[in-house]
Amino acid sequence: MVTHFIRRVNYYETDKMQCTHHSNYVRFMEEARVDYLDKIGYGFKRMESEGLASPVIGIDLQFKKTTTFDDLIDISVRIKSFSGVRVEFEYVMKHGKDIVCLASSMHCFLDKSGKPVSLKRTSPELYELLISESKE
Amino acid sequence: MVTHFIRRVNYYETDKMQCTHHSNYVRFMEEARVDYLDKIGYGFKRMESEGLASPVIGIDLQFKKTTTFDDLIDISVRIKSFSGVRVEFEYVMKHGKDIVCLASSMHCFLDKSGKPVSLKRTSPELYELLISESKE
Amino acid sequence: MVTHFIRRVNYYETDKMQCTHHSNYVRFMEEARVDYLDKIGYGFKRMESEGLASPVIGIDLQFKKTTTFDDLIDISVRIKSFSGVRVEFEYVMKHGKDIVCLASSMHCFLDKSGKPVSLKRTSPELYELLISESKE
Amino acid sequence: MVTHFIRRVNYYETDKMQCTHHSNYVRFMEEARVDYLDKIGYGFKRMESEGLASPVIGIDLQFKKTTTFDDLIDISVRIKSFSGVRVEFEYVMKHGKDIVCLASSMHCFLDKSGKPVSLKRTSPELYELLISESKE
Repeated sequence: MVTHFIRRVNYYETDKMQCTHHSNYVRFMEEARVDYLDKIGYGFKRMESEGLASPVIGIDLQFKKTTTFDDLIDISVRIKSFSGVRVEFEYVMKHGKDIVCLASSMHCFLDKSGKPVSLKRTSPELYELLISESKE
Repeated sequence: MVTHFIRRVNYYETDKMQCTHHSNYVRFMEEARVDYLDKIGYGFKRMESEGLASPVIGIDLQFKKTTTFDDLIDISVRIKSFSGVRVEFEYVMKHGKDIVCLASSMHCFLDKSGKPVSLKRTSPELYELLISESKE
Repeated sequence: MVTHFIRRVNYYETDKMQCTHHSNYVRFMEEARVDYLDKIGYGFKRMESEGLASPVIGIDLQFKKTTTFDDLIDISVRIKSFSGVRVEFEYVMKHGKDIVCLASSMHCFLDKSGKPVSLKRTSPELYELLISESKE
Repeated sequence: MVTHFIRRVNYYETDKMQCTHHSNYVRFMEEARVDYLDKIGYGFKRMESEGLASPVIGIDLQFKKTTTFDDLIDISVRIKSFSGVRVEFEYVMKHGKDIVCLASSMHCFLDKSGKPVSLKRTSPELYELLISESKE
């Protein structure tokens, strides 16, 4: 599935160059990823209730054009790859027809004690879901 | 005691009006308060280790002049009042000779279960310290 | 007019006490105020295009209950008073039936050179609008 | 030159997983880069006064370990490469002996109208400085 998350840029997210400060796109990615996981039926809250955390272990962002206050950014999200241990999300952010940012984030899965888990064994439903989503 | 905490304004804290966004002063207050409590010997970490939290229950800020990227703000902090249940901090923020912001924050004290505590009974050392500081 | 702005709390807006960090409510206020001004037909962009700025000169927030990740906050906004020179907004933030924060913000009006303006003379339409809204 | 910038993690930079939220490291990178440029004698303010902007066009961060409130992060910065058109900074962030984050940022150079500039022609001193730093 590719989901779309629309995000308006807030005034406090701009900087003195009149543009959206680049650090905020990392936050937009999180908002869009939360929305994606909700939409595929395995949101943060469900993961938390099952004692599962999915911390960010890497991010990469390429900025193509600037945006500013009040701009609507359309963030499309999909799962690029899933190894069984790590999942990579891919983000395409557009303002109108223009691509403004291309990004990816890599995540692992930890249990409550902070140890890596084998999703296949501990959360087979999530495992199958991520396998399935990564093939689309 | 009146403590001084010097804080340089970061680029990402400015907005498209070229000024430090007003929401950041609330964060400067927290940084200066953390520094104050460290200096009087009862920092956040000690409170946490004793199962004590001191959440913010009210803030008030008056903005007098703008600041911008790279400005050094001198934040003086003192305890304005302590009722035994609530403590109020007062902040004077200066850039050079100019007062840029006058502020206060009110806090209560909670135990691990989120219930209000009587500091006099549970943390007599902190109680005496706050009484003493509030009289200066 | 009283407007309602619904805001979901983001993961990055929580802190290690598991709650929405109090500084973020100042940002929610700005988002809700931007929405209010858009709805009464005099948004930030129109003001900017007319060379008008409306900086925050004071804020006051009282925190009643905590919120956390994924909570929906209903922020109602109205104009509490307008003196012709200063306008005060009032905010009531609710999570479900619970009031979580009561707040106000005071603003003045400046021209491009940063000098206070007489709205009655320079922007009579906005002047009348604010007079009218403040009487509701 | 390799510079070191020490940054204490603020309370408001933690999240409900008890850790520094990953988006903040992007801000730490900016703070450390501003410090680096100041130390080599070509800070943001000088660039701005010469009509030069150096926007971020890409960032990459790999998170190795978590940090939390009050941790001191030692951020070492150096220039990894300079093509004459683009400069890449490299960041190694440590908490004690542990590497917590490895990162890089890519930047271009624009004039006041937002057009790419040839540093060699318009800012030969900065050009030579970056060439020299990138060889260390």
